[in-house]
Amino acid sequence: MDDISTEADPYLPYDGGGDTIALQELPKRGSNYVMSNGGGVMSSTTHLLDFLEEPIPGVGTYDDFHTIDWVREKCKDRERHRKINAKKKESAWEFTKSLYDAWSGWLVVTLTGLASGALAGLIDIAADWLNDIKEGVCLNAMWFNHEQCCWGSNETTFAERDKCPQWKSWAGLILGQEEGPGSYIMNYFMYIYWALSFAFLAVLLVKVFAPYACGSGIPEIKTILSGFIIRGYLGKWTLLIKTVTLVLAVASGLSLGKEGPLVHVACCCGNIFSYLFPKYSKNEAKKREVLSAASAAGVSVAFGAPIGGVLFSLEEVSYYFPLKTLWRSFFAALVAAFVLRSINPFGNSRLVLFYVEYHTPWYLFELIPFILLGVFGGLWGAFFIKANIAWCRRRKSTRFGKYPILEVIFVAAITAVVAFPNPYTRQNTSELIKELFTDCGPLESSQLCQYRSQMNGSKAFVDASPNKPAGPGVYAAIWQLCLALIFKIIMTIFTFGLKVPAGLFIPSMAIGAIAGRIVGIAVEQLAYYHHDWLVFREWCEVGTDCITPGLYAMVGAAACLGGVTRMTVSLVVIVFELTGGLEYIVPLMAAVMTSKWVGDAFGREGIYESHIRLNGYPFLDAKEEFTHTTLAREVMRPRRSDPPLAVLTQDDLTVEELQGIINETSYNGFPVIVSKESQRLVGFALRRDITIAIENARRKQEGILLTSRVYFTQHAPTLPADSPRPLKLRSILDMSPFTVTDHTPMEIVVDIFRKLGLRQCLVTHNGRLLGIITKKDILRHMAQMANQDPDNIMFN
Amino acid sequence: MDDISTEADPYLPYDGGGDTIALQELPKRGSNYVMSNGGGVMSSTTHLLDFLEEPIPGVGTYDDFHTIDWVREKCKDRERHRKINAKKKESAWEFTKSLYDAWSGWLVVTLTGLASGALAGLIDIAADWLNDIKEGVCLNAMWFNHEQCCWGSNETTFAERDKCPQWKSWAGLILGQEEGPGSYIMNYFMYIYWALSFAFLAVLLVKVFAPYACGSGIPEIKTILSGFIIRGYLGKWTLLIKTVTLVLAVASGLSLGKEGPLVHVACCCGNIFSYLFPKYSKNEAKKREVLSAASAAGVSVAFGAPIGGVLFSLEEVSYYFPLKTLWRSFFAALVAAFVLRSINPFGNSRLVLFYVEYHTPWYLFELIPFILLGVFGGLWGAFFIKANIAWCRRRKSTRFGKYPILEVIFVAAITAVVAFPNPYTRQNTSELIKELFTDCGPLESSQLCQYRSQMNGSKAFVDASPNKPAGPGVYAAIWQLCLALIFKIIMTIFTFGLKVPAGLFIPSMAIGAIAGRIVGIAVEQLAYYHHDWLVFREWCEVGTDCITPGLYAMVGAAACLGGVTRMTVSLVVIVFELTGGLEYIVPLMAAVMTSKWVGDAFGREGIYESHIRLNGYPFLDAKEEFTHTTLAREVMRPRRSDPPLAVLTQDDLTVEELQGIINETSYNGFPVIVSKESQRLVGFALRRDITIAIENARRKQEGILLTSRVYFTQHAPTLPADSPRPLKLRSILDMSPFTVTDHTPMEIVVDIFRKLGLRQCLVTHNGRLLGIITKKDILRHMAQMANQDPDNIMFN
Repeated sequence: MDDISTEADPYLPYDGGGDTIALQELPKRGSNYVMSNGGGVMSSTTHLLDFLEEPIPGVGTYDDFHTIDWVREKCKDRERHRKINAKKKESAWEFTKSLYDAWSGWLVVTLTGLASGALAGLIDIAADWLNDIKEGVCLNAMWFNHEQCCWGSNETTFAERDKCPQWKSWAGLILGQEEGPGSYIMNYFMYIYWALSFAFLAVLLVKVFAPYACGSGIPEIKTILSGFIIRGYLGKWTLLIKTVTLVLAVASGLSLGKEGPLVHVACCCGNIFSYLFPKYSKNEAKKREVLSAASAAGVSVAFGAPIGGVLFSLEEVSYYFPLKTLWRSFFAALVAAFVLRSINPFGNSRLVLFYVEYHTPWYLFELIPFILLGVFGGLWGAFFIKANIAWCRRRKSTRFGKYPILEVIFVAAITAVVAFPNPYTRQNTSELIKELFTDCGPLESSQLCQYRSQMNGSKAFVDASPNKPAGPGVYAAIWQLCLALIFKIIMTIFTFGLKVPAGLFIPSMAIGAIAGRIVGIAVEQLAYYHHDWLVFREWCEVGTDCITPGLYAMVGAAACLGGVTRMTVSLVVIVFELTGGLEYIVPLMAAVMTSKWVGDAFGREGIYESHIRLNGYPFLDAKEEFTHTTLAREVMRPRRSDPPLAVLTQDDLTVEELQGIINETSYNGFPVIVSKESQRLVGFALRRDITIAIENARRKQEGILLTSRVYFTQHAPTLPADSPRPLKLRSILDMSPFTVTDHTPMEIVVDIFRKLGLRQCLVTHNGRLLGIITKKDILRHMAQMANQDPDNIMFN
Repeated sequence: MDDISTEADPYLPYDGGGDTIALQELPKRGSNYVMSNGGGVMSSTTHLLDFLEEPIPGVGTYDDFHTIDWVREKCKDRERHRKINAKKKESAWEFTKSLYDAWSGWLVVTLTGLASGALAGLIDIAADWLNDIKEGVCLNAMWFNHEQCCWGSNETTFAERDKCPQWKSWAGLILGQEEGPGSYIMNYFMYIYWALSFAFLAVLLVKVFAPYACGSGIPEIKTILSGFIIRGYLGKWTLLIKTVTLVLAVASGLSLGKEGPLVHVACCCGNIFSYLFPKYSKNEAKKREVLSAASAAGVSVAFGAPIGGVLFSLEEVSYYFPLKTLWRSFFAALVAAFVLRSINPFGNSRLVLFYVEYHTPWYLFELIPFILLGVFGGLWGAFFIKANIAWCRRRKSTRFGKYPILEVIFVAAITAVVAFPNPYTRQNTSELIKELFTDCGPLESSQLCQYRSQMNGSKAFVDASPNKPAGPGVYAAIWQLCLALIFKIIMTIFTFGLKVPAGLFIPSMAIGAIAGRIVGIAVEQLAYYHHDWLVFREWCEVGTDCITPGLYAMVGAAACLGGVTRMTVSLVVIVFELTGGLEYIVPLMAAVMTSKWVGDAFGREGIYESHIRLNGYPFLDAKEEFTHTTLAREVMRPRRSDPPLAVLTQDDLTVEELQGIINETSYNGFPVIVSKESQRLVGFALRRDITIAIENARRKQEGILLTSRVYFTQHAPTLPADSPRPLKLRSILDMSPFTVTDHTPMEIVVDIFRKLGLRQCLVTHNGRLLGIITKKDILRHMAQMANQDPDNIMFN
């Protein structure tokens, strides 16, 4: 940082093409080798300052759909930090700036948490209201949903708390009567009408204003967090349109959820707020730390589970997750959760969407049905992934994908027509899950709780406590639930991938919850009628509650979600935060583990990884182990049939030759070598940087002609007297490129790429440059090893 | 894995010292370069099989006090996995073996969890019993502690549940009277007698049988997990002695806790069980995955906080924490917690040591005292670290450290003499914390809850609900608590570092809980007497509970523990699991964050990092950022004044010369180069491996003489006809050594070392070998940059 460091480094004289300098002599020659124990530190900044003192605008930025270089970004950030720290003591203003810089990380996650919580609350309220519009309207206050409308009413009893004169169904409003086949058809028609309107509006808005707003967004966010640039994916337009269309899509009754897209919404907030802070806006690696925290906040508000959100971010979406990010993610998740709780969109003062309390413990023999539910979850997950990917591939490859609006309307129409007659599919999916999770207590009026009382055997729901013989209401409910299960399974496959915002968490959980509740009731009735069986005799005494069907629903929901996403710890923690009791972690864990293992037996990829691969994003999964025995030289380019590697020599190219090499090839970067003869590696220069630097030199530096010599060395080469002024490009040369030997096993190379976040790596043999391996080469190689088409990796 | 792979690789002919092969020609020459798209995979295993087909016993193992090579270990494990997978289909037996191998990870963590939970329960029960022995004995059943003794008694009322005729104090037993000054002195004497006996026994056992059993063990476990070998540290003797002496040390009344050592105990279990599975016993990297899971189980049983335990393992102790380990850690933590709950050592059916429930919310203005508690915690942490390290350094450097037994007895005597008169220091520290955390309810008989009732103003504890004027009992308690605070602060500094098992969690939490409770009562009284102040008027109405002193104690405990250990998320989650309510996370977080920032202002290292540095372990902290601008060539050896780098040439050394180089130097490994002239790097050979290989060859291969030529190349060099048989050492050559250029900034080098877990890295300039950087060089450089003595890094 002081004057001596701008001096040329005496240790590195111009190193020509000759191979004559015996290296063992070097320590003797350079008495300035290490200047002194104290002063040696400063002399080392030479090439860094070289770079900084003449910054060329644009150097160090990225094109759209390119991969970032994590190492370079992190170095840039440390350099910025050092500069601010060095200036800190100069004045009070600089000190304030350094404080602002130090605090900006906390500020940005706080803002992200606040915005995510507020938006989630807004979306919850709006979706609830719009969803109820399908059925009717609140007469005295249009902006109330069904539940709020009836809160104010004094005429309703607790048992019929859903019915109040203020709330009019469409039939009641239009035809003037609430009952009868005419009004049923009227309501049916209005339900379909509104569903189609909402779906049409949603897909139209997405198509016209923000195509990136469709889907759940999690595959893309995973890719972005792994270091890929998709401009506009997290922008303000996407945020706005996604928020609006998410509400519409949920209200349209399609088999989708709003939990996944909330992660996208939170990440948009994080990205937008990061533009307020140069520390984050100018550094792609630092920005990704904010996005990791934002995705934790997104899950936190989606389920009211802050710790689960942090673990989700850690386990599922994040790539680079230092401990500082863990702490900030936790903070963002908490802030978001508290904002949401203050808004109180569920009206129960609870953070949690599906808050339940169970009062009976579980027994060891119940692990058998829980594990069976896990198997079901795994099978469903594997089947769903295969079917959905096949359908999405067909959509991509055939003419069919050209009409996304028609497709959405078609799916929405089928959904609405089939869903209305069945009360379990007509209602909001979140409410369905909540009802399935809830245990039957004396206050439950649900059809699912119509057990026959043992005392008088009457059919009505005289006694709603479980472990009684099931009444006809329960049997009817089971039939309806079976139909709902089949319906949800089919529709979810066709819905995920439509051009509307669509989450997968809620539909998956609903399928699991339905299956779980059915299994739960079956086990309960088995225990009632066969309480002399060995398994039941030991645990279930007559007259006591011993089976909780709601718990089965929860276990089933976790198993199905686990089968689809292959999440493990974060899923268990999210569900644990729903119930708040450590008691039920073992059943959950048994089911989630089984589900993951069963699912993995059919294919190791979760739905998000499958969609990443379908879309050809360059995503190097940190979870997948590379188990092959290939060596670096089999993966590197040039291959046998390829032309030789395009390299630059350090001091004997002209500007014209350099431009020729750049124009003839499409590589993103070029190794720089000492000379063609020795092939010894000097550094690596990026295509984008070279182009920018040449243009910049032409504009600003006099005397740069096409015949000018280009040199990457410290000192200019000796040139004939009449030659034009040479162009020094050392400042754009990366003098510490990563190298591996040609014998390095690919498992190590893949590990290096993952852990350090590299873009490319050079391959040497006995000190000489042989070839290059890029992230794309690795992905293609991995696809080839897995017998997949390597050409579907599109981006670089 | 098949025959073709044992063929010599045609692409790599004998590469002599000449520099003549132009590399661009290579792709043309080798038509076998990549054999085919399918078959190319197999041909690459050449050097791996080379290694495996002639395994030399001992190659690939480590000496004591050496650093492991993570990359090599992970490659070894993948190779083993591939071998088992390839054999799987051969027979049913091989298939069973492969299944066993796949499940062994889950088995070992299950066993570890079971053992940790059982041992923790045993330690809890034994420590409770032994602790009560200091005060008296249960007449009808010696093996009952005070509480259990009085459970069976019918003669006690609920208010005096601690007093029953079966339980006799020592005075009652010996003198026959429970009251009076004589029996007080008798009890005092017996208290000191037992305390000294326990302490003496503990230190004697540690000194004679297992010196590694002393201390908390967490600094050493952190070092071991980062890839260091300390043989016996996690062995069965250490486990046995640590378990026994931990009980004795806790019972002796010293200011220490059993929570930290429980992590050590759990890690011992993990290490011992890993010997049952060759997958883990033979691979140091895989073994560390088990140890990570074990440390999570340790914290899980220490606090009854499984999720907190996993986060503790992730945040505080682990180095390499892949997602698979996260999942297994979670499982181990859960198993351990459930075993502990089945043992039910606290008798409250709770997993949690300090289970509390609060009934009043907190108000925003209370953040001010919470943050003040955070400041106190940070100051205490910084002070404690400085004072304790200074004292430990003095112990190490002066004659004083030669008498550990005397020191322990001396400290135990002072502790016992001072602790007995004050009821808050006499009782078990865990019980003290529990009492301080607990809110005053109508059933509380504690002195801390003797508030004056507003109705009649009587002095007795007629009304125990808070937010009343404090009675004389509360004032007396505050004075005693103040004395206890000072006592604990002083004694903890001298206790941590004694040669007995000693945890720091409980003493730190006790100090924080005392300070917090005092602040809580002060705020409460302030709110009572000044309820017209603006802050109180808005939130605290007269006659309502608005301040919970127990919550202050909990916040204070978290802040002090945070100040000492600098834990963040895991600490908040551990305390969150104690209360079970998301409600109080914000106060905890505010206090823990403040405490960390205040503590960091005085020094960024927590107590564990400080002890690691004090002991000179080679630990490269993943949390500490390297912010200097030095380059690789300033850190590498040889330095300016050093002799040239000791290198081996690939084919012109004799066995005698090689042995000469090994004997003359003390380096752990040697780079192998093409020739002295070209200095081009071929690979890296470890000292230990060379020694073993030469000895092995002498024993097994005929004709190996001192004049035999040693070669590391694929083919033997051409030798004169009468020369002895050459020795091929290619199998021990690491042909993919990590290299960086001399211009690489040290921040990148440090990053590579941390993320890949390297032992050493070679430095090149323009393709030629310049020097070497080892982990020790980096640690010395970092110490030098921080103006510390670089010579205290002892091990390599």
